[in-house]
Amino acid sequence: MLGEHELIARIRRRAGSPPAWVTLGIGDDAAVIEPERSARIVLTTDSLVEQIHFTRQLTSWRAIGHKALAVNLSDLAAMGAAPRASLLSLALPTDVALADFDELVEGFVTLAGQAGAPLVGGNLTRSPGPVVIDVTAVGSARPRRLLTRSGGRPGDELFVTGQLGAAAAGLALLRAGAARAALDADASACVCRFERPDARVRCGVTVARRRAASAAIDVSDGLADAVHQLAIASKTGAVVDASDVPVHPGAAGWAANAKQDPLALALSGGEDYELLFAVSRRHRRNFFSAIRQSGDLTATRVGRLQAEPGAWLNRDGRLEPLGPGFVHF
Amino acid sequence: MLGEHELIARIRRRAGSPPAWVTLGIGDDAAVIEPERSARIVLTTDSLVEQIHFTRQLTSWRAIGHKALAVNLSDLAAMGAAPRASLLSLALPTDVALADFDELVEGFVTLAGQAGAPLVGGNLTRSPGPVVIDVTAVGSARPRRLLTRSGGRPGDELFVTGQLGAAAAGLALLRAGAARAALDADASACVCRFERPDARVRCGVTVARRRAASAAIDVSDGLADAVHQLAIASKTGAVVDASDVPVHPGAAGWAANAKQDPLALALSGGEDYELLFAVSRRHRRNFFSAIRQSGDLTATRVGRLQAEPGAWLNRDGRLEPLGPGFVHF
Repeated sequence: MLGEHELIARIRRRAGSPPAWVTLGIGDDAAVIEPERSARIVLTTDSLVEQIHFTRQLTSWRAIGHKALAVNLSDLAAMGAAPRASLLSLALPTDVALADFDELVEGFVTLAGQAGAPLVGGNLTRSPGPVVIDVTAVGSARPRRLLTRSGGRPGDELFVTGQLGAAAAGLALLRAGAARAALDADASACVCRFERPDARVRCGVTVARRRAASAAIDVSDGLADAVHQLAIASKTGAVVDASDVPVHPGAAGWAANAKQDPLALALSGGEDYELLFAVSRRHRRNFFSAIRQSGDLTATRVGRLQAEPGAWLNRDGRLEPLGPGFVHF
Repeated sequence: MLGEHELIARIRRRAGSPPAWVTLGIGDDAAVIEPERSARIVLTTDSLVEQIHFTRQLTSWRAIGHKALAVNLSDLAAMGAAPRASLLSLALPTDVALADFDELVEGFVTLAGQAGAPLVGGNLTRSPGPVVIDVTAVGSARPRRLLTRSGGRPGDELFVTGQLGAAAAGLALLRAGAARAALDADASACVCRFERPDARVRCGVTVARRRAASAAIDVSDGLADAVHQLAIASKTGAVVDASDVPVHPGAAGWAANAKQDPLALALSGGEDYELLFAVSRRHRRNFFSAIRQSGDLTATRVGRLQAEPGAWLNRDGRLEPLGPGFVHF
């Protein structure tokens, strides 16, 4: 493996020319960017740790680089913030080959370019153990156009984007050693979702700009955890209607084969990176207009916030406690 | 150890109320801060990895927390940026006790409060190996008041703050198992410098606001490395005058005992976190005024930039190549 300066030079070459708002990119003591006029700075950091969040056996280096940024973009999306820049901090053991390093960087900067979150800086160090990839994403949002977890009110309806359980099913398929060529389209989509999650940036920004939701959170640890967190932050209770939860067809297929409950996969399977919104009734139409402007994306009503405390699952009219989400700590 | 949500709640309590410019602190999908009027956003990230940058045997948890932020503040200082916020991303193995976690957080947030870099967000995850502490510091600087590495010109004089080699001597003393109570004041100061480096934030900001330097870099990997990097970025050569390099008296004392060259310690010993400035002759007085406004801090002329390429050490009139700095990758 090359030294630190050589590796930084490689990243710099691959990252290419940054957009105009980057005053100073990779290579100095710090990066400098221009804030958007009258906007707030939105900051988030999230890491992928080898053996905890990924293994080299199951995920390609390029997918790892993509995912390390995508999980951060998902946090920006949940705030309604437009991506502005990213930082990449890598701790690498000596057994990572240069070609793998290049692939990781490639996965990262390709998504960074697509998302408008140019890589402006970072850090490289040795690791005596796992690969640790720490990413900071910087976004931009107007102060009165920000989405938070805490804005939900009793009576708001809960909507989730896309379909759930796909990433968890994808991971299960990879772990079972499924041959990719033998997978049907739905199962294959699950593997793709696990490896290269899409952050719902356009959706989050559009909903926020139209003030179409009162609260939002990203679904990183399953729908149940997201509902819990949103309800706690909003100081409300919540009910999820079991029959309305949109289970990804690939997840349903995997669950049928594995004799598992597909709903459990949707509620507790991690890494879907969809968005959960609380929407007041008077903003329902506004919200659906925002979703239509968000590209090829659906949103499904899955429940509501209520004044009575607690988070509940409504199964055919019987309420049971909504279990916790995926625990990764 | 507690779960993720409980640990975040502990950090949140300890971090206390953030200053007015923090719109949204710990607890949502991302943090939100207000940029300073007409200022640019300055971003840096740096990590401490167990066994690479610290060991639990030699450094207290509180010192580790302090240092993880200080090394980032030092990068902001080198840009002349005023600290504005910080993010803390922790990967922790299961054998870290709750009391140690609390101490680490305490060291971090105490410095964050002093430096005006409130902890606004972060991430917690398990590590299957070392403790990895990744910090992002966010600063603020006027566009025409920024310091970079690349602004140096032939003829500029090089000045370094403080005295060098202290941190390396402090580490050597700790490694040798020195009893702290038995250390003299100079040696003790070296241990303190290693454990709890001061970032020269006030100095960097003052010099930048007065436009008193043409370039700056922080001395994290020894003076030699800093001079190399500044000269390369400025497309100049550089000469360091060996007899002018300010060696910390504790480093000189350690070197004498260990039969080492004290100059080598100052040139190649890492972690001093002083600042190196390139100053044009017409800004010399302006620069010294800035240093006088930077509190109890000295600056010493150690050499100059020149048109002829390369980085050189001038020993009593004989030029030899300036060796590399501390290699930690």
